[in-house]
Amino acid sequence: MIKKSSSSLQSQRLPADYFTGNGWIQLLVRDEPIHCNVAKVTFEPGCRNHWHTHPGGQILIVTEGKGYVQKKGEPKQLLLPGDVVTILANEEHWHGATADSLFTHIATQLLLDGKEVNWLDPVTDEEYSQTQ
Amino acid sequence: MIKKSSSSLQSQRLPADYFTGNGWIQLLVRDEPIHCNVAKVTFEPGCRNHWHTHPGGQILIVTEGKGYVQKKGEPKQLLLPGDVVTILANEEHWHGATADSLFTHIATQLLLDGKEVNWLDPVTDEEYSQTQ
Repeated sequence: MIKKSSSSLQSQRLPADYFTGNGWIQLLVRDEPIHCNVAKVTFEPGCRNHWHTHPGGQILIVTEGKGYVQKKGEPKQLLLPGDVVTILANEEHWHGATADSLFTHIATQLLLDGKEVNWLDPVTDEEYSQTQ
Repeated sequence: MIKKSSSSLQSQRLPADYFTGNGWIQLLVRDEPIHCNVAKVTFEPGCRNHWHTHPGGQILIVTEGKGYVQKKGEPKQLLLPGDVVTILANEEHWHGATADSLFTHIATQLLLDGKEVNWLDPVTDEEYSQTQ
């Protein structure tokens, strides 16, 4: 059993390599002897991650603000606190904040052979601003 | 991708078969094509689950109140909002509220061959009240 107290958790800036805009990440579970990673991510307005896939899938639980999730080929969907999204293995998608609100979610990635994510192209401003 | 809006989620009473005391559970992810289940659980003061193990392990993220987690053979530990606990596969343990506070956590169980939990004996009042 591994217990981390809230006071020990640290916030790091989101890496510019995989995100458009600014935000923060708190690693809750990582490199532990369990087959998943968990992080709390806060996106500033307009911030979103690049298109990506998860070999083992992902679960998003929205805790604050307003955001979007979009699966490739489908319209983006609005996300509000308490909403839950299951992203299946290898589904290409992105998520991030609306243009006018902070957005925070808890993201759980199931690992497949230790692999968490495959990053793809940035979400262009045109893709981001398409009508919902 | 499966999106559930907060407004569609329902609270159910905790099953008396596996819990001492009263509480509520909201199933966030269950029976979906991803290898984990997620639930938000609220324990009334003094409520706790039975001793149990998870074949694939479990992650607890505390969202409200005060609670305990105890691994068999170790002292129980106090849990506060923002604390994160990783319970490894097959570690015998229980969790629940303190005697004087509600307690809410998000619990993620990794499935192993579709199996989520093995329930064992109730946590006796003597075990529950042992000094931390």
